[in-house]
Amino acid sequence: MSGPESSLPIAVDAMGGDAAPGPVVAGAVSAARDFAVPVELVGPQALVEQALTAEGDVDRTRVTLVEAPAAVGMGDRPLAALRRGRPTSIRVAVERVRDGQAAGLFSAGHTGATVMAACTELGLLPGVDRPALAVTVPTERGAAVMLDVGATVDCRPEHLLQFAAMGCAYASVALEVAEPAVGLLSIGEEALKGNDLTRDAYRLLEGSGLKFTGNLEARDVFTGKADVIVCDGFTGNVALKVSEGLVSAIESLLEAELAGTLVARLGAVLARGAFKRFRNRVDYSEYGGAPLLGVKGLCVVGHGNSTAKAVRNGIVLTRRFAEAGLVTRIAERVVGLGAGPATARS
Amino acid sequence: MSGPESSLPIAVDAMGGDAAPGPVVAGAVSAARDFAVPVELVGPQALVEQALTAEGDVDRTRVTLVEAPAAVGMGDRPLAALRRGRPTSIRVAVERVRDGQAAGLFSAGHTGATVMAACTELGLLPGVDRPALAVTVPTERGAAVMLDVGATVDCRPEHLLQFAAMGCAYASVALEVAEPAVGLLSIGEEALKGNDLTRDAYRLLEGSGLKFTGNLEARDVFTGKADVIVCDGFTGNVALKVSEGLVSAIESLLEAELAGTLVARLGAVLARGAFKRFRNRVDYSEYGGAPLLGVKGLCVVGHGNSTAKAVRNGIVLTRRFAEAGLVTRIAERVVGLGAGPATARS
Repeated sequence: MSGPESSLPIAVDAMGGDAAPGPVVAGAVSAARDFAVPVELVGPQALVEQALTAEGDVDRTRVTLVEAPAAVGMGDRPLAALRRGRPTSIRVAVERVRDGQAAGLFSAGHTGATVMAACTELGLLPGVDRPALAVTVPTERGAAVMLDVGATVDCRPEHLLQFAAMGCAYASVALEVAEPAVGLLSIGEEALKGNDLTRDAYRLLEGSGLKFTGNLEARDVFTGKADVIVCDGFTGNVALKVSEGLVSAIESLLEAELAGTLVARLGAVLARGAFKRFRNRVDYSEYGGAPLLGVKGLCVVGHGNSTAKAVRNGIVLTRRFAEAGLVTRIAERVVGLGAGPATARS
Repeated sequence: MSGPESSLPIAVDAMGGDAAPGPVVAGAVSAARDFAVPVELVGPQALVEQALTAEGDVDRTRVTLVEAPAAVGMGDRPLAALRRGRPTSIRVAVERVRDGQAAGLFSAGHTGATVMAACTELGLLPGVDRPALAVTVPTERGAAVMLDVGATVDCRPEHLLQFAAMGCAYASVALEVAEPAVGLLSIGEEALKGNDLTRDAYRLLEGSGLKFTGNLEARDVFTGKADVIVCDGFTGNVALKVSEGLVSAIESLLEAELAGTLVARLGAVLARGAFKRFRNRVDYSEYGGAPLLGVKGLCVVGHGNSTAKAVRNGIVLTRRFAEAGLVTRIAERVVGLGAGPATARS
């Protein structure tokens, strides 16, 4: 499974994340030390060196530095940051992937900036019109891949078809499912239920040659009826974030309801542990990260509030995707799709 | 608050619901007996009489029957059922409201059929272009109104503006909030975050005179940052159902995780109780029902699997909305909106 690029380092956006570079550098050092992943930290050298010093002994054969003078702040407009002139850490990280000097990149920074830099500098794979961010969600049977969750908010039906094919390639790596079942996120199981977008996408998916199992109602996102859940980036982002919000709300409610007696408090403590595990499974920063699919290079995005451990997980995951040849697999799936009967509409 | 129509009965779609007419008739009898709500059961008389017999002594001054020979099945296409010719129970119930013989209707039947019958027979209020189904969701501060959750899946920006105004009128009745804070469900707090629809709707809402608090991220649906959460019917339906699904998934996970020791089992039992309460607050059938806003008459929709208690709650709620003059309040809000500067775009 190991591609020729697997000895290359993972480029890490050292300035990406709410508390960067501290936890990013710590996570990268841990990935290099504990998982033997070669990493290159991209950012202003002085700042990164300073953060490295705090980590004590670091194997500098596995942890290298690449200069990038600027950074995109979490509140910045990505386009404005891009235009400002001085190369940002995310842009330089993308360039390392583009130029074949890194096997992939990991950034816990501004998602929009990563998407924009990746699309601009790497370009899209042949047959892909829009990129998609894919997350892994826990289900009663294990896990499922959901995409897009925010890279492409306004979609055409063809985009959803491409997301489905890319999601299958990703599921074959992330979930190790050979022939993933594809569900189209909609508001009813029947083909006609949904909005204009999903009704048209339904027809494309039916003729795609993918293992399409029809519409998936949102209440079945977590039941495991589908391995790949396809939706536009607006709907996917809402579904993901409403889930995160609900877990928090239930936690608050539980704490309030169960704060009474000693026995109740005991229950609360137990329930809190189960929740935390569930939350970690929902939270893609804990899982490691969400790959941006459809671009000509490997880019994995983490949560802005990623801890050192989450960054480490993200880097290890990026390395795993590189070794599995994720981008090549996606390219093959999408090219096959373009040649198939599904898109040959008159 | 009591309008002239408040002595009129509530028309109940006796054939609406997965197990109709049994639980519907039982719920109606309970609403009449325990809450003094006059009801009329609309459906095939023989069937309804049979179900009434099972209820024992019934005060037939408060529970009357209205003949409707047919019914829309839960799996039917609403349009096909409408065209089939013989008047369905939901259509006759709508006609009772239209003709001023009922103060409002409650149906736990096919939501699409109710929306279609209501739009066709009642028509839309002046200034309303599309109807919206509004649910009440629990929040950390109490509750919020979310709309649309499925009546209008493809929306234009003006529709979202109208939903916002209707939602405010509804929140003033359901949540008793005088000046509700309106949030636009989107994928980021900044005005520019979102899709084409929400970006345009944002501008309309800003100039609407409503208390618009900007975009609401989906993770804040349950925090209580907004009293009225506005979205298109596709997104709203997904948000609602993904929440229902997540509660079920967490329940399963908790049961699995906490099934070990005695202490753990105790925790599971306690947590299950808290969950059940939460689920009941999320589930609009337990809350009583979701009003269809924007039509010229009072229509409240319940869940297809409503129990007798849920039907009773729905009927009592419908009566409360009738007494509060909900439809009149909505009409006033929307007319004001039409005359305002927000829609006077050049």
